Amino acid sequence: MATRVGRYTIRLDQPPSVMGYASVVGKKEGEGPLADEFDQIEEDTTFGEKTWEKAESRLQNTTLNKALGKADITPGTVDIIFAGDLLNQCIGTSYGLREFGIPFAGLYGACSTMAESLAMAAVFVEGGFANVAAALTSSHFCSAERQYRLPLEYGGQRAPSAQWTVTGSGAVILGREGDGPYARELTFGRMVDLGIKDQSNMGAAMAPAAADTLQHYFDDTGVSPDRFDLIVTGDLGAVGSNLLRELLQKEGVTLGENYNDCGLMIYDRDRQDVHAGGSGCGCAASVLCSHILNNMKSGHLHEVLFMATGVLMSPLSVQQGQSIPSVAHAVHLSTSR
Amino acid sequence: MATRVGRYTIRLDQPPSVMGYASVVGKKEGEGPLADEFDQIEEDTTFGEKTWEKAESRLQNTTLNKALGKADITPGTVDIIFAGDLLNQCIGTSYGLREFGIPFAGLYGACSTMAESLAMAAVFVEGGFANVAAALTSSHFCSAERQYRLPLEYGGQRAPSAQWTVTGSGAVILGREGDGPYARELTFGRMVDLGIKDQSNMGAAMAPAAADTLQHYFDDTGVSPDRFDLIVTGDLGAVGSNLLRELLQKEGVTLGENYNDCGLMIYDRDRQDVHAGGSGCGCAASVLCSHILNNMKSGHLHEVLFMATGVLMSPLSVQQGQSIPSVAHAVHLSTSR
Repeated sequence: MATRVGRYTIRLDQPPSVMGYASVVGKKEGEGPLADEFDQIEEDTTFGEKTWEKAESRLQNTTLNKALGKADITPGTVDIIFAGDLLNQCIGTSYGLREFGIPFAGLYGACSTMAESLAMAAVFVEGGFANVAAALTSSHFCSAERQYRLPLEYGGQRAPSAQWTVTGSGAVILGREGDGPYARELTFGRMVDLGIKDQSNMGAAMAPAAADTLQHYFDDTGVSPDRFDLIVTGDLGAVGSNLLRELLQKEGVTLGENYNDCGLMIYDRDRQDVHAGGSGCGCAASVLCSHILNNMKSGHLHEVLFMATGVLMSPLSVQQGQSIPSVAHAVHLSTSR
Repeated sequence: MATRVGRYTIRLDQPPSVMGYASVVGKKEGEGPLADEFDQIEEDTTFGEKTWEKAESRLQNTTLNKALGKADITPGTVDIIFAGDLLNQCIGTSYGLREFGIPFAGLYGACSTMAESLAMAAVFVEGGFANVAAALTSSHFCSAERQYRLPLEYGGQRAPSAQWTVTGSGAVILGREGDGPYARELTFGRMVDLGIKDQSNMGAAMAPAAADTLQHYFDDTGVSPDRFDLIVTGDLGAVGSNLLRELLQKEGVTLGENYNDCGLMIYDRDRQDVHAGGSGCGCAASVLCSHILNNMKSGHLHEVLFMATGVLMSPLSVQQGQSIPSVAHAVHLSTSR
């Protein structure tokens, strides 16, 4: 049974365990500082397919297969899968996962999807709604660029605040039993919109949602940030993560050296020309399912607060003059139950 | 605590109760046979907004407000909301619901969203993850047509198998206590794709997914279709609902007079020029949250198997030659606990 803690947080009394996880990334991500941590680096960004969208589907398909393999289970063992992506109608997910025959609950959380899907999977397993559940998402630089921004062939200049969409995917399989890490607490965020309209500054749009959810988690649980070995956001990048520190500081919450952002971890910003850092659903997903979970398994990290943030706009809504609402969901992962 | 029944079905041991529900529809739906059942019929299809997308957001916003009012609760009472829509990046939902300040889990299930969101809300309430949860979706003829098909101004001919996207929204609020109806069983579907590529025949694409999920429900529970006062699909329309009967008949399952489809219920096909019937997330949502729940509240229906189906394609995936995967989720609603 779960216990609600405060207004926003859910404590899982029988924390589900990670049974397996996997990450697959593209060439550029494989040239970054986390190269040794991914399960697979694909040199061919098409993943052998003829369109970027099909490439993203192949990426999700490969990642789920790897996670199932590492968990040593077949698709028939998985009771439900939670997944989504950035593409219109989430076709990276539907075409990537249709062949598995696993009951499917589609999500749309933009870049918050890894935390949203992981939280959903944890709920279903903890409550006995599923014995085994999978959580999955992806992004692909080329499918995202042409949908959200400009044709790649145009070669447009990018603003310094812009981020680079990660070509990558991460999948987690959760079950009732296992040797961890465990999902212990969940905080589902509410939408926050402070009026940002600049599509080239997603970090600024997302930081207030990240601050809102983190503040809720700390208020609800009464713990302070130093309880964690790592507090990690999904893809705020350089602009957004600095803003997050500032916003929380105003509320009296100080994020210390234990705070980092997947968008700052996945690339070497000095060397890789990614401006403010990485972004996309696949950013948080591939960093969680490599560096973070690897370090939890090896005992280098014990208490991790993983929070992914997403912007809930579309190119059309921005063209229509709308500002950009964002959302952030947090999952407390722990090596102890 | 929930009990898993068979491979696909979840039985809720403490079935959550509907606390409130509401439906808001457009002019055309208000001229159909269910006119007297909706909470609001809006003569102005723009809902007072300047774009069709903003109109759809306003529609969702209005519907949730009505459902909260009928449940006699404030947004602050709702622990989580599950919602999504058909628009790219689900902007009908994000811009429609951002002001409520309710923790938000975005879904993408296309026209299956009403069943998916209702099932999610039921899981969260039953398992103690939420005291009160909301489930919501919408569609708008004008925003859907220009995104999925052709500009309205073009005035293209429609195929006889094509359906008419409902301008409508439905919202359900679930809580732990109440006088029903109750959500008693859930079956999450898997994606099914039998190779249909015709965007003008969504009924044919969705019928196999509907058959798959219904078959799973009957196999898992051992009940026969005549247990129900109503078995209702979301928007298979004339083509899809006939196919569903045929597909199940081949498996030895006969759907009788107690089977109907929201896409056939919402319009008068002889009089309203909607070809194969209604479709869109708002079809199942607005029929559930008017006619069906009204009749359960008044004691005319007791056992209802509500199943919404969705096609998980995008215009781009069809242009790229992909066939159309579909999914269907079922919720058993009952007036007894």
